[in-house]
Amino acid sequence: MPEEVADKEFNIDKEKHFSEWYNELLWRAELIDQRYNVKGFLVHRPNATIAENLIEEMFEKELQRRGHKPMRFPAVIPEENFEKEAEHVEGFSPNVFWITHGGSTKLEKKLALRPTSETAMYIMYAQWIRSYRDLPFKAYQRCQVWRYETKHTRPLLRDREFYWIEAHDVFESKREAERQVIEDMEITEEIIHNKLGIPFLYFRRPSWDKFAGAEYTFGADALIASGRVLQLPSTHFLGQNFSKTFGISFIDKDGNERHPWQTCYGPAVGRILAAVIAVHGDNKGCVFPFEIAPIQIVIVPIFKTGVDIDAINTKCLMLHEKLKKEYRVEFDESDKQPGAKFYYWELRGVPIRIEVGEKELHEAKLTIVRRDTGKREMIDEKELDKYLKNVGKEILKNLKEKADKDFNSRLFEAKTKEELKKLADKGGFIKVPFCSIDSDGKPCADVIKEETGLEVRGVLHGREEAAKGKCIICGREAKLMVYLAKSY
Amino acid sequence: MPEEVADKEFNIDKEKHFSEWYNELLWRAELIDQRYNVKGFLVHRPNATIAENLIEEMFEKELQRRGHKPMRFPAVIPEENFEKEAEHVEGFSPNVFWITHGGSTKLEKKLALRPTSETAMYIMYAQWIRSYRDLPFKAYQRCQVWRYETKHTRPLLRDREFYWIEAHDVFESKREAERQVIEDMEITEEIIHNKLGIPFLYFRRPSWDKFAGAEYTFGADALIASGRVLQLPSTHFLGQNFSKTFGISFIDKDGNERHPWQTCYGPAVGRILAAVIAVHGDNKGCVFPFEIAPIQIVIVPIFKTGVDIDAINTKCLMLHEKLKKEYRVEFDESDKQPGAKFYYWELRGVPIRIEVGEKELHEAKLTIVRRDTGKREMIDEKELDKYLKNVGKEILKNLKEKADKDFNSRLFEAKTKEELKKLADKGGFIKVPFCSIDSDGKPCADVIKEETGLEVRGVLHGREEAAKGKCIICGREAKLMVYLAKSY
Repeated sequence: MPEEVADKEFNIDKEKHFSEWYNELLWRAELIDQRYNVKGFLVHRPNATIAENLIEEMFEKELQRRGHKPMRFPAVIPEENFEKEAEHVEGFSPNVFWITHGGSTKLEKKLALRPTSETAMYIMYAQWIRSYRDLPFKAYQRCQVWRYETKHTRPLLRDREFYWIEAHDVFESKREAERQVIEDMEITEEIIHNKLGIPFLYFRRPSWDKFAGAEYTFGADALIASGRVLQLPSTHFLGQNFSKTFGISFIDKDGNERHPWQTCYGPAVGRILAAVIAVHGDNKGCVFPFEIAPIQIVIVPIFKTGVDIDAINTKCLMLHEKLKKEYRVEFDESDKQPGAKFYYWELRGVPIRIEVGEKELHEAKLTIVRRDTGKREMIDEKELDKYLKNVGKEILKNLKEKADKDFNSRLFEAKTKEELKKLADKGGFIKVPFCSIDSDGKPCADVIKEETGLEVRGVLHGREEAAKGKCIICGREAKLMVYLAKSY
Repeated sequence: MPEEVADKEFNIDKEKHFSEWYNELLWRAELIDQRYNVKGFLVHRPNATIAENLIEEMFEKELQRRGHKPMRFPAVIPEENFEKEAEHVEGFSPNVFWITHGGSTKLEKKLALRPTSETAMYIMYAQWIRSYRDLPFKAYQRCQVWRYETKHTRPLLRDREFYWIEAHDVFESKREAERQVIEDMEITEEIIHNKLGIPFLYFRRPSWDKFAGAEYTFGADALIASGRVLQLPSTHFLGQNFSKTFGISFIDKDGNERHPWQTCYGPAVGRILAAVIAVHGDNKGCVFPFEIAPIQIVIVPIFKTGVDIDAINTKCLMLHEKLKKEYRVEFDESDKQPGAKFYYWELRGVPIRIEVGEKELHEAKLTIVRRDTGKREMIDEKELDKYLKNVGKEILKNLKEKADKDFNSRLFEAKTKEELKKLADKGGFIKVPFCSIDSDGKPCADVIKEETGLEVRGVLHGREEAAKGKCIICGREAKLMVYLAKSY
């Protein structure tokens, strides 16, 4: 980017102008470049790629700890596989990119560029799974998927190419599979809430919003942009739909041949990064949790008239050499003014800035400024190791508390349509009594959407909520409480 | 796979029946499944994926240490980018998969599924690089590429989809770029020879065998299958070919606009894994270096009549719990006989087997068997930590020495065509005096290929070799010594 842009202070009101703030930040913080000459395809620059890799590692570690094995399946899926599961093909085929030629030769069978991998993986699962001894079978792949989105694309939120991890598990019994769905939600909580500080709720989706081919879907909804929902990882109970159509069967302990039960789970890394940026960021730019920050620490020398520049630089250099063994750290040696350096690194969300000036030099001290609080303190140089060991947790605790507080302030309840209309534009979730999340409830959901712009996100997972009153639209006895929200 | 196959001992003469040995091993060791229903597309099972991930990590760490940043570029390339560099498009277009449709809509411009990423990346480089202050620019991506191979495919060696890391660097001066080519060769040496124990030689390729669009190419050749060459990472000096056609330029320190110099380097992970399998494996199966072994340690309980089965199992379990914090370890609790367990894990190349029987139980000892040497020894249980800390290096040293010895025994020299013909079927490299590796030498290379099946691999990098005598084919004064070999 031209220097005059790169060096301009970033200051956009995130609350008031979220879309501008978000797009400008992806660009100015050198996270994403949207200028690639195919619509909906992004270039992920190092700041995004490093954070994404670290988020992927968190998921892979957690999945492996829970018994999943990594695998790699082809990115192309022949049409014949793709068409086996009727609901699945209906759901995905409008969005499939098709490969039709190799060189100048027309291919015998056209190939789908995978929009999701069920139909690539299960054709192999059918060959591997023979006996109850092969179960449970838990595998995942870290990969890209491609979807020919017809809706307006938004960087990291809705792209035509995105990066995710997809786990596909197979079980002897329905019960085990249903337990896996809960485990997937625990993984989401463990990483997205506990390690990245992003609050969300898990909803059982209405039937018209479940994954194509699944029996039911739980989707995690976070809130960004003053209370619009962003969907984070979904987990799907596939029942025996795919095992029947793909011919996956096993001989059980009693010698009977049976179809197993399946689940799948797909954290999309770019969306998670977008949530981190959108939830924790402020008017000055990104605020990264320490663990996934592309750059964790920046060292800035402070020169005033008459100081010993060489001595300060040497101290910075030594610090840099020492810290880079353990951290992702930069030493800003550029000839910019300290103030310009500060906002440059603040924009990029670097959690810790270390300043070294004359006072620090002579007193063996360091000035440390935290990005998340802006708090500045001077510590003894020999305390630095200990300080850095703990600061990641403290930053995360602070970011999580702030995000939780904001999130919790956005949970509303409406008993009547009038109350609903008053709350509709506040941002956040509105809990209402509702008739049904099966297809017979769809007309009521359509009315809500049309009159308020709110969508039925589903029934809250984990906390039993007795239905009270009548459906807010049709007046039938409410079977459940659903959460409504506007999506970003 | 059916149990009767899975449990059969693996024993194929690697020297005599390499192809059978290799294919059968990929299958039986559960590395690769070739039954996916698109030709040339592999399923990588956990044993392959884990090793590939570890190899990738080695390269990423080394590339980052040397100043490369990770990025992610789209997998699709519009035809217009692809066609900018004439030699490049000519070299690659017969092998490109083309995406022509999204859903049922014909795309406005057809998209190439990247066969390599120059033409995706450099269009962005042209926008990012403005000034000498942006240089050197060193970036890489870890990704898949797709090539519509018309030749016979071979798993991990020539597939239509493969995984690699590609580094693309840009420099102010020719000299810096040429130094990068040497650095790339150092990275190859550091990882493939020093960490994986695979010997190879780097050759400057003949002009008819260089990368399409490059000024020159260095390719690493290892030897597998009794002396057939397998090409490992290549590094390419692109000169200013792409910077001119893609409009990459920068303002130098004197204010002049200039085209920078470029290089690229592409380690293909599957081929490297194939080399590890092919070079270190033996008639019983895989022999993995400790660092990349998908499973590093297996614990096998040994039950004889009258032993305390519970006590032995408990000891194994405790050992398993302890070791799995630091290593990839399995406890084989199956009801197979110890002998059957031994060859099952030997086939999979597990470097260390720990046996626990009655003697080990009562004397606080462990029996340890190394896969690479077959050596069995009993150690004090409390020595285990120390033993495991060192054994990785010892195994690597042994594998590397054996491989180096075999490799070095396969370097031959011929001064006349008669000598060459006698050596042609021995396997390995044959050094001969040769007229030219520019296009005027191609006819001589063709004669060699036709009469002996040997190919000109190029001129050895790093050791200056004075040409002696006349070209072995045309009799012109030899300009250089070239190495010939048959490829696998």
